[in-house]
Amino acid sequence: MKLDHTAKGVYAIAATPFHPDGRLDTVSVDRLTDFYLECGVTGLTILGIMGEAPKLEPEESLAITRQVVGRAGVPIIVGVSAPGFAAMRSLARGVMDLGAAGVMIAPPPSLRTDDQIIGYYAHAVEAIGDDIPFVIQDYPLTLTVVMTPGVIQKIVNNHRSCVMLKHEDWPGLEKISKLRAAHKAGEMRDISILCGNGGLFLDFELERGADGAMTGYAFPDMLADVVRLQQKGRRDEAHDLFDAHLPLVRYEQQQGVGLAVRKYVLQKRGAIASDAQRKPASAISDKARAEVDYLLSRLARYDKRAAF
Amino acid sequence: MKLDHTAKGVYAIAATPFHPDGRLDTVSVDRLTDFYLECGVTGLTILGIMGEAPKLEPEESLAITRQVVGRAGVPIIVGVSAPGFAAMRSLARGVMDLGAAGVMIAPPPSLRTDDQIIGYYAHAVEAIGDDIPFVIQDYPLTLTVVMTPGVIQKIVNNHRSCVMLKHEDWPGLEKISKLRAAHKAGEMRDISILCGNGGLFLDFELERGADGAMTGYAFPDMLADVVRLQQKGRRDEAHDLFDAHLPLVRYEQQQGVGLAVRKYVLQKRGAIASDAQRKPASAISDKARAEVDYLLSRLARYDKRAAF
Amino acid sequence: MKLDHTAKGVYAIAATPFHPDGRLDTVSVDRLTDFYLECGVTGLTILGIMGEAPKLEPEESLAITRQVVGRAGVPIIVGVSAPGFAAMRSLARGVMDLGAAGVMIAPPPSLRTDDQIIGYYAHAVEAIGDDIPFVIQDYPLTLTVVMTPGVIQKIVNNHRSCVMLKHEDWPGLEKISKLRAAHKAGEMRDISILCGNGGLFLDFELERGADGAMTGYAFPDMLADVVRLQQKGRRDEAHDLFDAHLPLVRYEQQQGVGLAVRKYVLQKRGAIASDAQRKPASAISDKARAEVDYLLSRLARYDKRAAF
Amino acid sequence: MKLDHTAKGVYAIAATPFHPDGRLDTVSVDRLTDFYLECGVTGLTILGIMGEAPKLEPEESLAITRQVVGRAGVPIIVGVSAPGFAAMRSLARGVMDLGAAGVMIAPPPSLRTDDQIIGYYAHAVEAIGDDIPFVIQDYPLTLTVVMTPGVIQKIVNNHRSCVMLKHEDWPGLEKISKLRAAHKAGEMRDISILCGNGGLFLDFELERGADGAMTGYAFPDMLADVVRLQQKGRRDEAHDLFDAHLPLVRYEQQQGVGLAVRKYVLQKRGAIASDAQRKPASAISDKARAEVDYLLSRLARYDKRAAF
Repeated sequence: MKLDHTAKGVYAIAATPFHPDGRLDTVSVDRLTDFYLECGVTGLTILGIMGEAPKLEPEESLAITRQVVGRAGVPIIVGVSAPGFAAMRSLARGVMDLGAAGVMIAPPPSLRTDDQIIGYYAHAVEAIGDDIPFVIQDYPLTLTVVMTPGVIQKIVNNHRSCVMLKHEDWPGLEKISKLRAAHKAGEMRDISILCGNGGLFLDFELERGADGAMTGYAFPDMLADVVRLQQKGRRDEAHDLFDAHLPLVRYEQQQGVGLAVRKYVLQKRGAIASDAQRKPASAISDKARAEVDYLLSRLARYDKRAAF
Repeated sequence: MKLDHTAKGVYAIAATPFHPDGRLDTVSVDRLTDFYLECGVTGLTILGIMGEAPKLEPEESLAITRQVVGRAGVPIIVGVSAPGFAAMRSLARGVMDLGAAGVMIAPPPSLRTDDQIIGYYAHAVEAIGDDIPFVIQDYPLTLTVVMTPGVIQKIVNNHRSCVMLKHEDWPGLEKISKLRAAHKAGEMRDISILCGNGGLFLDFELERGADGAMTGYAFPDMLADVVRLQQKGRRDEAHDLFDAHLPLVRYEQQQGVGLAVRKYVLQKRGAIASDAQRKPASAISDKARAEVDYLLSRLARYDKRAAF
Repeated sequence: MKLDHTAKGVYAIAATPFHPDGRLDTVSVDRLTDFYLECGVTGLTILGIMGEAPKLEPEESLAITRQVVGRAGVPIIVGVSAPGFAAMRSLARGVMDLGAAGVMIAPPPSLRTDDQIIGYYAHAVEAIGDDIPFVIQDYPLTLTVVMTPGVIQKIVNNHRSCVMLKHEDWPGLEKISKLRAAHKAGEMRDISILCGNGGLFLDFELERGADGAMTGYAFPDMLADVVRLQQKGRRDEAHDLFDAHLPLVRYEQQQGVGLAVRKYVLQKRGAIASDAQRKPASAISDKARAEVDYLLSRLARYDKRAAF
Repeated sequence: MKLDHTAKGVYAIAATPFHPDGRLDTVSVDRLTDFYLECGVTGLTILGIMGEAPKLEPEESLAITRQVVGRAGVPIIVGVSAPGFAAMRSLARGVMDLGAAGVMIAPPPSLRTDDQIIGYYAHAVEAIGDDIPFVIQDYPLTLTVVMTPGVIQKIVNNHRSCVMLKHEDWPGLEKISKLRAAHKAGEMRDISILCGNGGLFLDFELERGADGAMTGYAFPDMLADVVRLQQKGRRDEAHDLFDAHLPLVRYEQQQGVGLAVRKYVLQKRGAIASDAQRKPASAISDKARAEVDYLLSRLARYDKRAAF
């Protein structure tokens, strides 16, 4: 079950559950995996930035991969970004042996020019091997690396194993239109485009040609519904549902505190036993918790899944 | 009518109207000023980033200031950020002579350490004189300068002429709480806090202690309503109105294309004759225009001001 | 006397002399201009970063240009980098009317992708007009903008008015070789390449194909000698002279304090009356002054011009 | 043999020797270790940026540590910078168990404010334990993190296990003076200060109060001689020797290509069998190789160790 360019729907960026004392909560790993599946996701992405990957020991990373792959029954993408290609290759080969569907690679923040970015992905493919399907993570807000549509086009055309773009440029609607136009004009192989940024623009991203979402919003069921409604051409309904969630989507997408909000909501939904983060953790203040509760109570008027 | 720390309500970041051929549209300057006043703003901020200030000749900057000050009858804040203190002083002294209420100063992107930021504002105050009330613009997303609450506290305490914070850190809710707590603890003079970032978090910013908004969202009347409702303790109504606008607020707040969206809506509302930007301009695509129209039509179901 | 691609030799980056109280020292402007000419420069660059340009009022910038152009009798390049194209155009047209030979344009620090950089220079040329010869300033260390040889090639080929590269990438030797190879292969028009970075690699830059130096080292006579010796094929002598100066070249090229060192030495050499900088100024400590004196005394064993 | 604040002399930043096919060259690891000892170093730093650490598998990192510790008989500092604290702790505990004297920690490039930097080191110490002596790496040019003397002072005072500063701020002479003054004023515990940046300012850094060098220049014997001469008060001799090497020091200190130059010279000196880097490698061009040969031949007139 290898990842290819036909992937669509929702790939949830999975949180990593911890006990309050910092140990991995393996019972919650199963519970959370089941939760995502019940929400209707078509895949999962683990060990990403929001999965607290850098806080994990290498053995823990492999153990989580084994557990999630074994339980999920949907394609699992594993984040393998690393400061060096040796660690990237080890992790990539290791998780593919465990049954992962593909890997996701973010560029290091030091890259600036088009050539540097294209060259980096060439080195990465040489390191992990050209038989592992990979996802480009295009996330300038956090990574400070800016990729033009032309750069993405070159990476895609240079490497058949590049099958997906995790699109979280901001703003990014025109970028989706340009990439889709490049494909139609025969200038780029087809790829799957799944959108991140907490889903903040998912309503229009789908209309621009994206195949779905890859993000960690604590209501992946809403994301899946919006994708389904748009696929069926029920545009207004899609926007109605999306807009009802937007105040919380926006709140959760705050850099730095977003993960604390997300885990808090996942815990309320029963998907994980504790909202603890492994250290160093971003805290959620009492005021923020009350704000999230208020947003949930308002959302519950429209979407019963937010009623607690 | 000098700016002081009691300022509250909505200071609209004013757009600068141009003819399609790039000339300043002075008729629309008056029309837009009147529009803002009818929207219920308590002040205006001109010559900011969104006012296309760097595209203006020095004489044009002064001419706009003269025209707006003469017509508005509310306090006018003028952006005087400049790569050098000579230009900053000239512009600051010039606009105060014309009747401006105060100036706004953004830190240059090269600043990194706390000491550098504090030192920069000390130099700026020395340059413009300590008799001109000024606003700190705290906008890391665009300026890449990160100010802790402690740094802001020091600038405020060092300079009596510092009377306001334009708060557009992101995320920033906890920052407002910390600054208000510092004042309550007697560690910082009182200042006015007006929030930017397109208003994306205005609903909660007010609840955290902000005095209002300073941003350019094309419905300043909504911003004014939300501030008023919150002041009266009508929290749910404030959020209802805010949430109805949030899809458009979010759309307009996109870096780079936001100004094109804003001018497009202002033109639709009759506030300016043309949505032209002076070169180099960010364009709005046909698809984006259709998306904005769709958002407006959805908004109009709730707020008649969005019906065209 | 317009700048063209045949420019060679040494263009000194001119300091701007101030009185200790901050007023422009117009007597020293003449004295310094004469000093540079006696040193054997083939041109001068004024109003650059090291000329404290951002601290000058617009009228002062024009006054200095008028004075230097009137006295020098060699081509004068004027820095016109500005946050907006309106100010850039005003200054560029103004100084060309006063007899400047060309202008120098640095990219703003926010540019990242190849397309952004190429687009910026297109906008700049549209603003100032394609009849004004201009110099690309390629200075990633300070400006944080990284230009590949391919990007420079495109700018040169897009704009016939681009006649020179101020090369101060670091490291940059291979870049010179690549640009010269691109010209030989018929892929790029010929341009003049003058090197900055305080002259730290001038010895080899000339051997790689550079036409000379454009930098502000306080011994422009040394730079001129090295260029002349290299042109005559007296390689070892060129390196001997260069190496004798290298300890001071290195010391002067320190970011932030370099200008204070440079003005201190220029004052010792009698080229300016005071080493004062206009505020905000970088100071030279007593220890640093003693270190410079020590370096000069050591240099004087080899080069009598350093004996005081 | 744990590292403490009395460390002085030269800690060579050790290269990591590879075979041309990319395998670790363990024979050369011994040879290079012996070479450094013969050069008079007082310690070694391994697994730093210049040691190609990110290209190593975790087992290789431990194997190299074991081999070098076993052979050297001088204190070994190990670079443990990592994107996450889990990997940092694993490596730190692992290398200390193998007999390392201490670890070196660089801040991640995303840190901006004083509080963020101080907080990062607090988290790091919590992760690795407060019983492991550590070195702050202060290297803004590559890491983009700017630490004021006040920030360093706080980190030192917060953590008794902080025993050394690897000083490679640029410019940095005043910083050394300020840190030493803070110690004398009783405001900061004493620490060892060893200087990096390829040694480019070592001549004066020692005079400002530094205890020696920690850098990878291919003539560590020169660095050791300069430290010794300065300690004995033979200032002119120290500068004479330093200045003779400065053209090569400068050439080797070029970002990106420096390691290729360094390995090329180390190979010529017989310290390693091959100058190969593991991929992705920075190449040395034919022209650059000829330039280095020329610099060596010129240096050999003064220092016979450069004659081949």
